[in-house]
Amino acid sequence: MDLLANFASSFLSQLQSPTLAFLIGGMVIAASGSKLAIPDAVYRFIIFVLLMSIGLHGGMEIREADFAALALPALFAALIGVMIVLLGVVTLGKLPGVKRDDAYATAGLFGAVSASTLAAAMVALDERQIPFEAWAPALYPFMDIPALILAIVLASLAKARQSGEKAAKVGVWSIIKESLQGSALSALLLGLAIGLLANPGPVYEGFYDLLFRGFLSVLMLVMGMEAWARLTELRKVAHWYAAYAFAAPIAHGLIGFALGYVAHVTVGFSPGGVIILAVIAASNSDISGPPTLRAGIPGANPSAFIGASTSVGTPVAIAICVPLFVALAEIVFGL
Amino acid sequence: MDLLANFASSFLSQLQSPTLAFLIGGMVIAASGSKLAIPDAVYRFIIFVLLMSIGLHGGMEIREADFAALALPALFAALIGVMIVLLGVVTLGKLPGVKRDDAYATAGLFGAVSASTLAAAMVALDERQIPFEAWAPALYPFMDIPALILAIVLASLAKARQSGEKAAKVGVWSIIKESLQGSALSALLLGLAIGLLANPGPVYEGFYDLLFRGFLSVLMLVMGMEAWARLTELRKVAHWYAAYAFAAPIAHGLIGFALGYVAHVTVGFSPGGVIILAVIAASNSDISGPPTLRAGIPGANPSAFIGASTSVGTPVAIAICVPLFVALAEIVFGL
Amino acid sequence: MDLLANFASSFLSQLQSPTLAFLIGGMVIAASGSKLAIPDAVYRFIIFVLLMSIGLHGGMEIREADFAALALPALFAALIGVMIVLLGVVTLGKLPGVKRDDAYATAGLFGAVSASTLAAAMVALDERQIPFEAWAPALYPFMDIPALILAIVLASLAKARQSGEKAAKVGVWSIIKESLQGSALSALLLGLAIGLLANPGPVYEGFYDLLFRGFLSVLMLVMGMEAWARLTELRKVAHWYAAYAFAAPIAHGLIGFALGYVAHVTVGFSPGGVIILAVIAASNSDISGPPTLRAGIPGANPSAFIGASTSVGTPVAIAICVPLFVALAEIVFGL
Repeated sequence: MDLLANFASSFLSQLQSPTLAFLIGGMVIAASGSKLAIPDAVYRFIIFVLLMSIGLHGGMEIREADFAALALPALFAALIGVMIVLLGVVTLGKLPGVKRDDAYATAGLFGAVSASTLAAAMVALDERQIPFEAWAPALYPFMDIPALILAIVLASLAKARQSGEKAAKVGVWSIIKESLQGSALSALLLGLAIGLLANPGPVYEGFYDLLFRGFLSVLMLVMGMEAWARLTELRKVAHWYAAYAFAAPIAHGLIGFALGYVAHVTVGFSPGGVIILAVIAASNSDISGPPTLRAGIPGANPSAFIGASTSVGTPVAIAICVPLFVALAEIVFGL
Repeated sequence: MDLLANFASSFLSQLQSPTLAFLIGGMVIAASGSKLAIPDAVYRFIIFVLLMSIGLHGGMEIREADFAALALPALFAALIGVMIVLLGVVTLGKLPGVKRDDAYATAGLFGAVSASTLAAAMVALDERQIPFEAWAPALYPFMDIPALILAIVLASLAKARQSGEKAAKVGVWSIIKESLQGSALSALLLGLAIGLLANPGPVYEGFYDLLFRGFLSVLMLVMGMEAWARLTELRKVAHWYAAYAFAAPIAHGLIGFALGYVAHVTVGFSPGGVIILAVIAASNSDISGPPTLRAGIPGANPSAFIGASTSVGTPVAIAICVPLFVALAEIVFGL
Repeated sequence: MDLLANFASSFLSQLQSPTLAFLIGGMVIAASGSKLAIPDAVYRFIIFVLLMSIGLHGGMEIREADFAALALPALFAALIGVMIVLLGVVTLGKLPGVKRDDAYATAGLFGAVSASTLAAAMVALDERQIPFEAWAPALYPFMDIPALILAIVLASLAKARQSGEKAAKVGVWSIIKESLQGSALSALLLGLAIGLLANPGPVYEGFYDLLFRGFLSVLMLVMGMEAWARLTELRKVAHWYAAYAFAAPIAHGLIGFALGYVAHVTVGFSPGGVIILAVIAASNSDISGPPTLRAGIPGANPSAFIGASTSVGTPVAIAICVPLFVALAEIVFGL
């Protein structure tokens, strides 16, 4: 009952938070047929600033971080990415009306990570004044890349098996390279490198961090509009996607929370860090994942996997999972 | 004489203010054939941020506002919008060389409201430290929508009357819907809703309000360039438009000031609020109005109504009406 | 030896500075084939904000500046622009495999000034807390315009001489006009005018100056990407361009430093101002110069002159010349 009460309080405060208000506002705007739109050039610059900001801060903190403390959460992040994909393939394979390629692509997208959900969680922790290791958001690629690779490799193997051929050689390295070359991960890694090697404190505080919340509010608006627009596409494909997309973020987040708890006990990973790990597990890729999977699993239907992720998965991750794991942490760690 | 002295002082300080300097700068830039241009994507984002900012602040303040205090100014705003259109139709109808449809469209545009002029007035009041109800800028749609609707309805009725048919059914509701769906009003209303229902204080102060003046300076530059570019178009049509466009903002502002004064005496509307009401009455729509009127009165010549508004009306409203009504308020209310 | 030690320390601190880190980061990003890109609309807005910021600050300071103190550095700036072009034409003319038109265009580009290098120098001086006259960056056009004009006039004269005709009348005034109409110089001059005539203090500090460092970091990233992309183009043309592009900024900077020193002794030009003059002499135009020269010397090969400037000249000016002239000033002026 404590969890429910805590969740309710956390959920209400999250509802009051501008992050969620802008997400819902975006849906309302799109539903009302408004002509309001955030220009694509501005949208792409906002993504750049958010991920550069996360990277810079992470890089500056990793410099002072204890490498031992960092290794286990990073390993767990990769493990979670792999588990989510395997779990997704099995689950979606059992649902009626779900095509094989679509199942792989959807599982890959839910294993990958969302920069917008991550940013929303960081703001929620800030507002509740729950501290976390500044390198925790840098766990992002450790989960993101294995999930995308595994999904694409499994889809290629399945295709080869079906056509009776010997398993076609899947270019794992080329998938890794493509992931790292994506604009979101590039910005994050560049930020990490500059944070680690240069001295970007003043420009981080005076610009990237300064614009973080405002740009996030604009991004949330775009996410909300996108979610509404994709809903129509989702309706055209099997309804089981919606069910999966609703339940999966919560299940994945619980896996993340459990492994985060293990890291808390063994290497002292902070409660805030556990929430971050749970939220990136709960999140599903909305910016960098779709193009990679589109290229890697060409047989999959974008309406199915992008629709499920953008129109159900992301709103659930932001609106339900963020307050849920904050509430859970408050009980488990007695915050 | 006091008014003249006050206006001169207020006008000079307005000239020194960056708002007007950027407006004039934009004209000079355009006149000199410079290749300097603000990219359209940035321009549209700036409009979004300005109107979201006005909306968020208004929403947060309406929460604590006395509804009774708000009702009368809102009613007056709608009344002013209607009066300006009727006055415009009569006046323009009497001028030689003005076509009927152009008269309706021009009257509608001068009844509608300009976000840039409103923002310039808010900054001028801030600089002079004249307080106003934060919900006063939210009077915008109460004047904007009735004016646009009335102009389009009158144009349709006139057309039907001329062609001997029964008045075609004009979709009033569809005009309201289209106005609300415009990107400017959508952003304003979304901001109002988030300000009312969520808790956007930090993101408002740390981002939207922070960027307000800077983005306004860039918008003024664009307005100045547009004004110069439209001047050529305006020259092609009847010169009476220019005369109307010069005199109308001052006359409309006086109507706004008079009704604002009534609200001051009856429900305690602040002097700053009276100035805001006078300035939005003086202003003419430059962003949201033109597309609505273009669709609603297809027979009207855009060079005429948009040219008159953008190249004469808006500069007069910003450069003359803002200092004029500040000076008038200083005398009337003894500020 | 002092210089070497000073340069090493200044170079290392410059390497640590985010300015250079973003430049190198941009090269790495481009070399790795990343899809990260700064949208063109944002890039153009960033240039506008940086040059407007330099202009506004310069304008506000010129108001209080002693005109006598300003005149000599301005004259020297023009002289340096002329000297660089003459020197470049002679030097490049002696190198094997360099076409005549390419030599004129390259010399013109290295005589013209780079806003990004200038901004990087301003931030470096700020970080080292070396004061400079705020009007010093406004020396920009005094060097930029004569260099561009001289290069185009010389190229036209050479072409006329070759074809045996009487020297075609070269429109000097039209080159000046075109330079001033370029988006970069327009923004700078508009900023200067507004800074001189209006009162833009609050909007300068609250917006333009606030965003300066962050926008510069983004611009550096773009410069780095551009430098890498142009390197391939440069490889196609004579390798002597690369040698010139490497050595010229240092040589030009020394000329600038020497004349700056004369101004220091005669009219008390500050050490920081001397560094600024040396750095704008070392810099080569990357934004405003290329289009002017492309139009003015149509026979020149853009791969040669833009490639040499963007991919070698600009990185050398930012990464080597800025710390070099800071170190030199520390020794010469005992900072």
